[in-house]
Amino acid sequence: MPMTMLNATHNPDLLCWEPTANGDTDFPIQNLPFGRFRRPGRGPQGGVAIGDKIVDLAALLELELLKGDAEAAARAGAGDDLLPLLRLGNGPASALRARLSDLLSEGGASGLREAAGRVLVAQADVEMLLPTTVRQFSDMCVSTFHIGRRNGNDDRGQPICPPVFRTLPVGYDGRASSIVVSGTPVHRPNGTWQESFNAGDLAFGPEPRQDYELEVGLWFGGEGNSRGQPLSMAQASDALFGMCLLNDWSSRGIQFWETMLGPFLGKSMATTISPWIVTVEALAPFRVPAFARPAGDPPVPAHLNETGDQQAGGFDIALTSRLQTKTMRGAGVSAQAICKTNFRHMYWTFAQMVAHHASNGCSLAAGDLLGSGTCSGPEMAEAACLAESLVAGSVKLDNGETREWLEDGDTIVLEGRAMRDGYASIGFGKASGQIIPAPDWPT
Amino acid sequence: MPMTMLNATHNPDLLCWEPTANGDTDFPIQNLPFGRFRRPGRGPQGGVAIGDKIVDLAALLELELLKGDAEAAARAGAGDDLLPLLRLGNGPASALRARLSDLLSEGGASGLREAAGRVLVAQADVEMLLPTTVRQFSDMCVSTFHIGRRNGNDDRGQPICPPVFRTLPVGYDGRASSIVVSGTPVHRPNGTWQESFNAGDLAFGPEPRQDYELEVGLWFGGEGNSRGQPLSMAQASDALFGMCLLNDWSSRGIQFWETMLGPFLGKSMATTISPWIVTVEALAPFRVPAFARPAGDPPVPAHLNETGDQQAGGFDIALTSRLQTKTMRGAGVSAQAICKTNFRHMYWTFAQMVAHHASNGCSLAAGDLLGSGTCSGPEMAEAACLAESLVAGSVKLDNGETREWLEDGDTIVLEGRAMRDGYASIGFGKASGQIIPAPDWPT
Repeated sequence: MPMTMLNATHNPDLLCWEPTANGDTDFPIQNLPFGRFRRPGRGPQGGVAIGDKIVDLAALLELELLKGDAEAAARAGAGDDLLPLLRLGNGPASALRARLSDLLSEGGASGLREAAGRVLVAQADVEMLLPTTVRQFSDMCVSTFHIGRRNGNDDRGQPICPPVFRTLPVGYDGRASSIVVSGTPVHRPNGTWQESFNAGDLAFGPEPRQDYELEVGLWFGGEGNSRGQPLSMAQASDALFGMCLLNDWSSRGIQFWETMLGPFLGKSMATTISPWIVTVEALAPFRVPAFARPAGDPPVPAHLNETGDQQAGGFDIALTSRLQTKTMRGAGVSAQAICKTNFRHMYWTFAQMVAHHASNGCSLAAGDLLGSGTCSGPEMAEAACLAESLVAGSVKLDNGETREWLEDGDTIVLEGRAMRDGYASIGFGKASGQIIPAPDWPT
Repeated sequence: MPMTMLNATHNPDLLCWEPTANGDTDFPIQNLPFGRFRRPGRGPQGGVAIGDKIVDLAALLELELLKGDAEAAARAGAGDDLLPLLRLGNGPASALRARLSDLLSEGGASGLREAAGRVLVAQADVEMLLPTTVRQFSDMCVSTFHIGRRNGNDDRGQPICPPVFRTLPVGYDGRASSIVVSGTPVHRPNGTWQESFNAGDLAFGPEPRQDYELEVGLWFGGEGNSRGQPLSMAQASDALFGMCLLNDWSSRGIQFWETMLGPFLGKSMATTISPWIVTVEALAPFRVPAFARPAGDPPVPAHLNETGDQQAGGFDIALTSRLQTKTMRGAGVSAQAICKTNFRHMYWTFAQMVAHHASNGCSLAAGDLLGSGTCSGPEMAEAACLAESLVAGSVKLDNGETREWLEDGDTIVLEGRAMRDGYASIGFGKASGQIIPAPDWPT
């Protein structure tokens, strides 16, 4: 544990004078994630989640309770886009969170509580937006269990992965324009696919094998690297700003047929993320050592070796996928868990992914989003997409319905919660999306 | 030939009162491409190339010689970024080019010639920039000859390609932040590669097999499709705004080892484009029917079928790669042609690539750039990257030097010229880039 990264904001004894922030909530006073919201009839604004409320950063600034880095971060986050806040990097965001922790806590600094009516907004009364227009989206693939689910295990009992997999964090460039915020409906895509996976006739039309993938997204912070210049592991670690949940919707029929230069249209119709940027700072108590490499695996390459705090580059975050069918919704049945996994199963850490990504001089910067890849664990219950679940047969729901692939009207909800004895648990909110029918073809 | 697309701007008899626009130039009065430039000590501005000069659109507007769509296009192009002009799409750009054609031609409308001293800038006196920050970059791969160079030919004498290749335009999402304008030096990347292509030990360090790829880039114009909604072939055809030359620098050691989900770091250290957007309108006289599918190939899918003007969706554009080594530069020897090919060899048209790209509902919009993929033709002299040239052995230069891969100090220059009897030839300018040594690793 890098105890040096813990500070007063992690104190589990802190309680908030806003009652919804205490007890079972994704957003206790120890979380304070950043997001962008819109009141009805108003423009986008930046805020910080607390319980079921949001601190309106523009209204907060009017109280003149901030100074220095905290004020700079609030100004950067108070506009119509969180990109300026992301650009400032971790230092100013940390200062703002520390001041907010004090202003929001029972017995803390005065000034905000008295003005709560003007500064706090109910989450139920606003629409959440993407934190910023995603500048670049890269999707990694770093769970051996995801790859090995269909490949089986080797003589060591380890998932069989392509030789490259354990030598570097595999990834590909995704489509930034496809990123949508939780709640956005997702059209089933049209595309070209084989009737049978093996040698069936080609068809063009609505995707028959619509899947989801449970991933964690990383928001890059700071100015990043100039094109041509790599980032050291220390620099990469400093660039980790915050995380979200990410559903990398995958159209398996399209994907499996098209793939020659990697995923393209099988992924780019939509990628759903949760709206709140949960800071890496808030997640510090849940850091764990990177995945333990089994004996016989290649060593970590020197340029991706972890030192200091990066040695706890993994994160213990419980992740859940839930499915609600149209029938369930009609009957008032809430979404049922179909996968329970954990982010600690990832073979490479986010710092390693970022350092690898920049190693060739590819420029990364604030506004970039990295997907972790499907967060599958070793057990079948930890299969984080339907293509994996299908290895054990179709998903059986409590109401008797079954699913091999998603049907129109199905909603997938991703949830995440970091938990550890002695610390307040940190939630992510939801990344939710419903599959709606494929569009008519334009004439 | 879609003669309906020809108009007064294509008249080969037009001469310009600016003498450098007549005779052997990339930028005769029939071209009028758009670009973004910067005078020393000034901010970015939009302009139109004419001979070795540029029409400064902001200065042109001050003359009040424009109205309607032509004025709207000039206003959209006169700022510090060409994105607003791209957003307007082809109609306004066409109106501006028609008016400029009249204002610049001998015996045409008066007003501009008299103010030439204020409105024309010498290209030699300015720095060319990217037309806009590239919003999204996708790279396609649609030459059978590129894929077949190493695979050989089938019983029909046709290049052997993966089964998907002739059923849809294969592509992948690239890295928009890696796009640089001609003249920008390109660091040799560091990365992970095998000493031997087959079973050598893994190494990490400067890429030993640095390659280039000669491609044509497409600038998408107009508002594009909403996420979830496809584009018809007619809509896709209307969205083709203009073209440029594109060097998809490729690091073969990195690429061949990393590839599991397609190219990633093997491509993302830099992609060089020529600065001028040569409009699809200016290229109308050089339209040719799409590549003739050999007997036995699958039919064109219905949703990618061409109708009307799209039947001439190919373009006859002569393309050249030149190489200048450090030794050649030292001796004052200019860059030597190492590939002469043509854009008409591409198996799929740009309209088909765009319609395919949007078929799953992926949103395309102004500011998107598509690479065509390597423009190789059937002959060895038409091999448009070194990995292909190497099939016949190392490239032999006139000064006795040879190249399997690019060395530090080597410069690759791409050129393009559309030519047809009875029409003024339309040039692209240059996409030039020099490989400079890999950076030191950060400590």
